[in-house]
Amino acid sequence: MKTVVVRNVERAEPGLIDALAGCGVATVHEAQGRIGLLQPYIRPIYAGSRIAGSAVTALVHPGDNWMMHVVAEQIRPGDIVVVAVSAPNTDGMFGDLLATSFQARGARGLVIDAGVRDVADLQAMGFPVWSKAISAKGTVKETVGAVNVPVVVAGQLVTPGDVIVADDDGVVVVERAAVPAAAEGARKRTENEDAKRRRLAAGELGLDIYNMRERLEKEGLVYIDSVDEVDELE
Amino acid sequence: MKTVVVRNVERAEPGLIDALAGCGVATVHEAQGRIGLLQPYIRPIYAGSRIAGSAVTALVHPGDNWMMHVVAEQIRPGDIVVVAVSAPNTDGMFGDLLATSFQARGARGLVIDAGVRDVADLQAMGFPVWSKAISAKGTVKETVGAVNVPVVVAGQLVTPGDVIVADDDGVVVVERAAVPAAAEGARKRTENEDAKRRRLAAGELGLDIYNMRERLEKEGLVYIDSVDEVDELE
Amino acid sequence: MKTVVVRNVERAEPGLIDALAGCGVATVHEAQGRIGLLQPYIRPIYAGSRIAGSAVTALVHPGDNWMMHVVAEQIRPGDIVVVAVSAPNTDGMFGDLLATSFQARGARGLVIDAGVRDVADLQAMGFPVWSKAISAKGTVKETVGAVNVPVVVAGQLVTPGDVIVADDDGVVVVERAAVPAAAEGARKRTENEDAKRRRLAAGELGLDIYNMRERLEKEGLVYIDSVDEVDELE
Amino acid sequence: MKTVVVRNVERAEPGLIDALAGCGVATVHEAQGRIGLLQPYIRPIYAGSRIAGSAVTALVHPGDNWMMHVVAEQIRPGDIVVVAVSAPNTDGMFGDLLATSFQARGARGLVIDAGVRDVADLQAMGFPVWSKAISAKGTVKETVGAVNVPVVVAGQLVTPGDVIVADDDGVVVVERAAVPAAAEGARKRTENEDAKRRRLAAGELGLDIYNMRERLEKEGLVYIDSVDEVDELE
Amino acid sequence: MKTVVVRNVERAEPGLIDALAGCGVATVHEAQGRIGLLQPYIRPIYAGSRIAGSAVTALVHPGDNWMMHVVAEQIRPGDIVVVAVSAPNTDGMFGDLLATSFQARGARGLVIDAGVRDVADLQAMGFPVWSKAISAKGTVKETVGAVNVPVVVAGQLVTPGDVIVADDDGVVVVERAAVPAAAEGARKRTENEDAKRRRLAAGELGLDIYNMRERLEKEGLVYIDSVDEVDELE
Amino acid sequence: MKTVVVRNVERAEPGLIDALAGCGVATVHEAQGRIGLLQPYIRPIYAGSRIAGSAVTALVHPGDNWMMHVVAEQIRPGDIVVVAVSAPNTDGMFGDLLATSFQARGARGLVIDAGVRDVADLQAMGFPVWSKAISAKGTVKETVGAVNVPVVVAGQLVTPGDVIVADDDGVVVVERAAVPAAAEGARKRTENEDAKRRRLAAGELGLDIYNMRERLEKEGLVYIDSVDEVDELE
Repeated sequence: MKTVVVRNVERAEPGLIDALAGCGVATVHEAQGRIGLLQPYIRPIYAGSRIAGSAVTALVHPGDNWMMHVVAEQIRPGDIVVVAVSAPNTDGMFGDLLATSFQARGARGLVIDAGVRDVADLQAMGFPVWSKAISAKGTVKETVGAVNVPVVVAGQLVTPGDVIVADDDGVVVVERAAVPAAAEGARKRTENEDAKRRRLAAGELGLDIYNMRERLEKEGLVYIDSVDEVDELE
Repeated sequence: MKTVVVRNVERAEPGLIDALAGCGVATVHEAQGRIGLLQPYIRPIYAGSRIAGSAVTALVHPGDNWMMHVVAEQIRPGDIVVVAVSAPNTDGMFGDLLATSFQARGARGLVIDAGVRDVADLQAMGFPVWSKAISAKGTVKETVGAVNVPVVVAGQLVTPGDVIVADDDGVVVVERAAVPAAAEGARKRTENEDAKRRRLAAGELGLDIYNMRERLEKEGLVYIDSVDEVDELE
Repeated sequence: MKTVVVRNVERAEPGLIDALAGCGVATVHEAQGRIGLLQPYIRPIYAGSRIAGSAVTALVHPGDNWMMHVVAEQIRPGDIVVVAVSAPNTDGMFGDLLATSFQARGARGLVIDAGVRDVADLQAMGFPVWSKAISAKGTVKETVGAVNVPVVVAGQLVTPGDVIVADDDGVVVVERAAVPAAAEGARKRTENEDAKRRRLAAGELGLDIYNMRERLEKEGLVYIDSVDEVDELE
Repeated sequence: MKTVVVRNVERAEPGLIDALAGCGVATVHEAQGRIGLLQPYIRPIYAGSRIAGSAVTALVHPGDNWMMHVVAEQIRPGDIVVVAVSAPNTDGMFGDLLATSFQARGARGLVIDAGVRDVADLQAMGFPVWSKAISAKGTVKETVGAVNVPVVVAGQLVTPGDVIVADDDGVVVVERAAVPAAAEGARKRTENEDAKRRRLAAGELGLDIYNMRERLEKEGLVYIDSVDEVDELE
Repeated sequence: MKTVVVRNVERAEPGLIDALAGCGVATVHEAQGRIGLLQPYIRPIYAGSRIAGSAVTALVHPGDNWMMHVVAEQIRPGDIVVVAVSAPNTDGMFGDLLATSFQARGARGLVIDAGVRDVADLQAMGFPVWSKAISAKGTVKETVGAVNVPVVVAGQLVTPGDVIVADDDGVVVVERAAVPAAAEGARKRTENEDAKRRRLAAGELGLDIYNMRERLEKEGLVYIDSVDEVDELE
Repeated sequence: MKTVVVRNVERAEPGLIDALAGCGVATVHEAQGRIGLLQPYIRPIYAGSRIAGSAVTALVHPGDNWMMHVVAEQIRPGDIVVVAVSAPNTDGMFGDLLATSFQARGARGLVIDAGVRDVADLQAMGFPVWSKAISAKGTVKETVGAVNVPVVVAGQLVTPGDVIVADDDGVVVVERAAVPAAAEGARKRTENEDAKRRRLAAGELGLDIYNMRERLEKEGLVYIDSVDEVDELE
């Protein structure tokens, strides 16, 4: 591993980042073609947050959170810190002291493929975290890793400057170059969904709104009156 | 798989269904002889709901939620939709649009052996869901399955028209024919528990209320004053 | 297994126990040298509790909660009941009736390496539980186990009279003889952290507060301006 | 639970059962429309077996193997014993003594949603087992269950008399009434695969054998010479 | 944690240790009252070994195998090394070099609550290992732990000098003081099982050998001819 | 997702690839600085293989193996096919027919973050596979993915043309540009280990070979004669 800290990270346009936050994870994930979703074992430590920000990254080792202090210096207002570990680990790599530091530097939240602790304090501070585990297990500061290099987190490649969107549904990453298209796609999708929602709320069926009946029949779906008729079908 | 939709489902008496909701999952599970409980990996997406309803079922394929639109048409007020998948899957098969549709049709909730998304919206709408996972992963609509056939969900067979009871403890299924007996058993059990609760709250011990002391002694339980006496026992 | 109930348990000083509760799990775990933490699969059934108490223990068998009634009699005000199972099990071994009994006897909470049920009631009662699972699965009362013997719970040895500290971060055990040192260590650590927190909140970096820069450089951490410079490093 | 033993089980034709064994699990699963497969956590305790037989079933409780002795009496030559547990459990419910008994009664193997032990002996005896776990944990004989009732095992409903096919790929259940069609379908599929295998071994591509190229293009698959051309696509 | 190496370990009588190896894990576990079994996630890296030996223990940290070299010096011929980790970890803490060293010192095998690597070499050397995982992930040598202190491994307390028995069924620990009784109990149990095995092989049923029929009837087990009679029972 | 097939992949020098195979996964992983290891849930379907080859990659969808036929055409002799899935999935995406095709095209093996089937046939053919699961669950061919694009597999980024090394310890990826250095490092490491192995086999201790004693003492490791002395230490 190259034990480097990359100082300069190109970030996406703030207005587009905030637009993605407004649409939420599920919509952004759909809008960019169903890619970029972190595996669902990454969960928020408390419900009710929805944020987006530019990724600054750290690659750390199991049981060692030294790089968390190094990445703190690289945070700019509006960033989200993304932490990968070189092997599966659930130790509590982040707590209220680091959160105080990250928050003071302007970070909007943390995504970490490991554990965190002081979760009651983090909620009281309003510092949202998406993690693999909650664990009070302390860590050492012995081995250097890397900051602001591309990392794999929960099955997704995250390059510094990519946009992270995170809410109660999980976490999605949008490549920096794809941000304008994703923001526009998510906006359209949201509008489209509003119209659909009104019709569905009025009792219309998706079967009719989406014209599914003919294709369902063609694919072999058969309506019968009673389960006893199943055997007659063949 | 027979790709059918069964239109007619016999449902249990509404009054009995509501009585089961009032008793809760743990009591109903006990009252019918400790059967029918879905495996505990099925969890509510938010705390505080307690519902019961008639099962309408859908059998879907991994990553494909097409049948969710088909089952919507079969919902009658008071139903709970129960969704099985033909192989383990955590994709987000259900979100706020389908919930709007299900709620407009009168569904009381959803039990699904897969993932759901838009969980913040679902909570805001008051549409309770018990699922295996929360995931924003979108699904396709390519392969037909079945609606209102018997399905296996989280280790239990659910036949359309069976009654589902769900709360913060999990989900239990009551066969339709067994509903009257289960409701009566649950009612008695609740009464009995109320009496026990008062005695226990007053400091009486279960050892005495349930006359356990003699049987414990017969089964070999020995009281000693200190752990050091253990070695003298043999 | 020796099927015994040990009546006498030496307990730590109440003032020290309460002091540990005030510091919380993560701090106590650090203060005693990063030992004693139960594995992180043990989670609170609801958020927001922080307790400490003397351990009274029960060793039960899978699907059998008989010893829970036996341990109730051994509870003294301020205790926390700690339950181990002789093989992995998620059944709901504890519910609102036993909680009523434990609470009446003065217990502050329960730590159990199995499942619990009636979780909505337990929250309403204010009886905190840390468990491996939530499950409505009922249990039998057929096989005797042991009460107030040393047990292994979630990877840690707990001897009756040890102090348990539990909060949203998890559960830590402090050996009774180590309680004074742990309480003093945790107090100092808390003071020290308060000072650090103020500096971090003001925007100072851990890199500077902890004098990390020189050691990081010695360990080979290199700062570069762009990720493209990585290849030039070698 | 009805604590019954059903004595009479209708079984499928022996010739068809053996034909299914000859085709193997993957082919039978495909031949009957991709249904009936037990979840993949059920694994053989040793490699190299391929069997089929009529299901005789037992429903047992966690940590209690009493019904295993009851089901032994119901075994007829050619049967496979299928064991479900009323809650998740990994205890070693079956070992070399029961295997000796089952083998003497003519059983071809065991499928169990729990643990087994004496696995070295079972392999030496040539008694194949598909299980959820290997565990030496002993069990009690305290609570009655049921024999030859429909059970849910690893996500599938198994009715006594259904045919079980098991090999290194896992376990599939074929409803008794569907056995003739499944056997015929599996035979045809096997023949068809033999022809395909010869062509593929000669270097022909599935793309050509299955005429996939046109449909792939229609679905949007694009061939490019270098990954650098990806950005030009949009 | 006290970072100590304890030099002197009292060991059990070699003849009794070897007698326990001859009986195997399942029998020893039963003979000592169904206690002492490590959780079933600990599995042999290759099949076919059955060993017993005196435990020498090491407590290490995640991702750090330094103490493995320290424990090597404490091995005496006939020992089994038992390794606990202070937090869940799957790194490959042991490979063919350490195995060469352990084997040269007379160790019979290794039980480790973490990962190992070079498993093909270990099998070729005939050095059996029971582990939680197989992983090539390398480890550092940065943090000291302890050697020959009591440790918790896979849910069991192991005190140096306790006897470890390990085979394809898993791993059981016998307290040193309990070794004579366990060896005698296991011997008797083996004899008893031999007699039972002969009767079962001849087709006798456990129902008759163990006189279960009367008790089963008393507990409510009912024999019926067909599953259709179930409904008439109530 | 860009649904493309990239035709041209630059591959590393065959001699270096074979040299890496000769060193094995653990040694290569160490030689390149402990990076590149796939998570340990990826396991060989049978023991005893050790291969290296150039990665050709496929990105598929859950339950859909269409791209497996597309990637077959891109295989050149000596390649290893690496398959990523867009969401967690265990379906049997690969069996003996595809293996026949891959083998005919010159593939040395398969690494797949999903399930495979026909494992007995694959072993008989000598076609090694490293997978997440074994499952007979069949898949559809409905949705296009991508071939020879960078993919994330079991936590690691794999770019087409990277070298994959796989054996009984797991799977490691070496970036194409890093192959010469990794091969040289692995060769040196192997030589060095041979010398160490001889000394360890002769009974020398790692403590002495690696001069660890002084550093251990400095880090606070204390030797005592009996565990009873622990309390005197403080």
